[in-house]
Amino acid sequence: MKPVKWIDGGVIAPVGFRANGVHAGVKGSSPESKLDVALVAADKPCNAAAVFTQNAVKAAPVKLSQERAANGELQAVILNSGNANACAPNDMANAVKMGDAAAAELGIAPELVGVCSTGIIGQELNIGAVERAVPQLIGGLGSAKEHSVRAADAIMTTDTVRKEFALEREISGRIVKIGGIAKGSGMIHPNMGTLLSVITTDCAISREMLDNALRLAVRESFNRISVDGDTSTNDTCVILASGLAGNVEITGAGDDFNAFDDALCTLCAKLAIAMASDGEGATHLITCVVSEAANEPKAERIAKSVIASSLVKSMIFGRDANWGRVLCAMGYSGETFDPERVDVTFRSKAGEIAVCKNGRGLAFDEELAKTVLTEHDIEILISLNEETEPGAFPWCMCWGCDLTYDYVKINGDYRT
Amino acid sequence: MKPVKWIDGGVIAPVGFRANGVHAGVKGSSPESKLDVALVAADKPCNAAAVFTQNAVKAAPVKLSQERAANGELQAVILNSGNANACAPNDMANAVKMGDAAAAELGIAPELVGVCSTGIIGQELNIGAVERAVPQLIGGLGSAKEHSVRAADAIMTTDTVRKEFALEREISGRIVKIGGIAKGSGMIHPNMGTLLSVITTDCAISREMLDNALRLAVRESFNRISVDGDTSTNDTCVILASGLAGNVEITGAGDDFNAFDDALCTLCAKLAIAMASDGEGATHLITCVVSEAANEPKAERIAKSVIASSLVKSMIFGRDANWGRVLCAMGYSGETFDPERVDVTFRSKAGEIAVCKNGRGLAFDEELAKTVLTEHDIEILISLNEETEPGAFPWCMCWGCDLTYDYVKINGDYRT
Repeated sequence: MKPVKWIDGGVIAPVGFRANGVHAGVKGSSPESKLDVALVAADKPCNAAAVFTQNAVKAAPVKLSQERAANGELQAVILNSGNANACAPNDMANAVKMGDAAAAELGIAPELVGVCSTGIIGQELNIGAVERAVPQLIGGLGSAKEHSVRAADAIMTTDTVRKEFALEREISGRIVKIGGIAKGSGMIHPNMGTLLSVITTDCAISREMLDNALRLAVRESFNRISVDGDTSTNDTCVILASGLAGNVEITGAGDDFNAFDDALCTLCAKLAIAMASDGEGATHLITCVVSEAANEPKAERIAKSVIASSLVKSMIFGRDANWGRVLCAMGYSGETFDPERVDVTFRSKAGEIAVCKNGRGLAFDEELAKTVLTEHDIEILISLNEETEPGAFPWCMCWGCDLTYDYVKINGDYRT
Repeated sequence: MKPVKWIDGGVIAPVGFRANGVHAGVKGSSPESKLDVALVAADKPCNAAAVFTQNAVKAAPVKLSQERAANGELQAVILNSGNANACAPNDMANAVKMGDAAAAELGIAPELVGVCSTGIIGQELNIGAVERAVPQLIGGLGSAKEHSVRAADAIMTTDTVRKEFALEREISGRIVKIGGIAKGSGMIHPNMGTLLSVITTDCAISREMLDNALRLAVRESFNRISVDGDTSTNDTCVILASGLAGNVEITGAGDDFNAFDDALCTLCAKLAIAMASDGEGATHLITCVVSEAANEPKAERIAKSVIASSLVKSMIFGRDANWGRVLCAMGYSGETFDPERVDVTFRSKAGEIAVCKNGRGLAFDEELAKTVLTEHDIEILISLNEETEPGAFPWCMCWGCDLTYDYVKINGDYRT
């Protein structure tokens, strides 16, 4: 398999896509400089797939987009930040109006437009502001780097860093590109599509295989991050495939599908890690690697339990190598394992420090531990020292962030 | 059923018990004034029952006490704070030594002594300090109020408030007393016995019915609180019944059992609420009541999901009536319900404010909401407006606390 290569351009990198973001004033109090409505559009209808929140309380745009994505065909996605359009007066009517406005201006059928919203729950969406912004939004569509940047900026809420990446890989002799934008900072937990994300590709791939690839990629990326254990009402990840890369259409399993899926996983993981790293108030990215497990699902549940633990998260914030909390979080993961075989190491670019061997504490240099934990990117390496089941994968990596004063501050005062 | 009456004395209130707490220096750095070893002892062997942590990583004293409690008979419980004696060198040997020291000084069989530890995980217990303190601990045993107070103080870690209550109720014409001490502030989550607690009673009750009563009581009290979603390696709740109240021994279901069980539930709920209220860094006690549900387990899962949500907890800290987060947390509880029938009200002694009706936001007075949420004790009242299943109980109440800067501070720097 040829390696992937990171490129510029985000969602406009693949052939056949345009994007834009504008200020509509969705949230009355937001400054003119805050872009809040985005559009990603293809030149023609695309094969499409999407995953949505598993929350029982689903926002109106989630229900609408779910219905439309079920056809496997979309041409555009319109998104707003500043209001979730969930549990709000006229929520479904406004979600439909938002899609209709984009469809009318683009001159396409409303069924080809996905709709996503993110922001506060329970307040009526200022649909007038969105509708008034649509001509400018669509008039300004383009396929320069800045257009993807504007779309990525327009979906940010408490995000402090833009999430926009693209990569390319050769598939059946042609260069295939995949690009994505995403937002997500709070209400992030590993339970299906914990974010808004729009991904584009020019890969020629059937609807069915696109859907398979997206589900696999989301499982190994967005579903392996946790910021605060809350899954939102609005999580959506949509992929549009223009088919213009010129590769032989991928219609089944095989090397081409594997190459595409691996590239899509790589892109999604990059977006997911960017989200964990930009978790609300976060000062550290935490990567938890569980290895030498009987199988991958077990490694995954244990790694997720560790990155989701408030005590582990507070400990990393405090740069305190209090590894007992790691064992404790492993212990309530729901998985069984032998605590007396567990090894734990903390690692960062400042060094590596083994703190637990066979379930017992090791004497370690507290000063060095502090130095290791002072870095932004911290790895918690756990080995279960179990025999791997035949044919199973013994390993999983999940991502999270620390719990800080600022998380509490941001979420104690979100609406003002 | 005669009402219960709150009385003084904690664990020494029931007939036949003595208690004490002393400073042993378990944690080298703790001041002389910090009591850290406690003992609760009966004058003769008692019927006993216990529940323990569900964490797969169990501390040595948990494993030891689990084995001993399985016999249904105990006479004393020795407890220390400052060290969890979990995942630590010589942990099981030291747990046995701790029990042996108490047994020898009391002149009873080691099998009659329960052992509990709480504090940091992974460091070796200073067993010498504990052993040296045992003569003073047992020499000073007594049945005055101060003795229960000393025992309650000795098991506190990050607790800021002593948890010690007692009550009495008439059963078969005799006054039966139940008293308890508990500790718990962080690592508190509704997953069985989330704490250390020793409960005493002079009720005459068979081992089997005592065990039944404890399991019922724990389910409706300690298992319905959450501070941070972490369940610890050391959670233990033990009850000793001296049988000296003179009531007709309770050996089966019936009015007497119901009266005892109701009283035990009441005491456990009081201890549990004290723990939630004293959650690490907490500035608010949050009570979530879910009503008009199809059944109690459903109401319970939804209430637990709400009190465990970091976003709900941060919102209460910020006194922000951002009720959308309540619906969001309900939605990922794993239960199905119709969001469009949900009503939400915030209540405190400063007033009551309906914020959501049939899943849609109500216009409300933001100033009044702020005033309501400024009180220490906040209630989140949720109605699902469902039809209750025949014979089912439509209601559940769970307790938690807000998430504050101080929670992060306490847990970022626990070991120093």
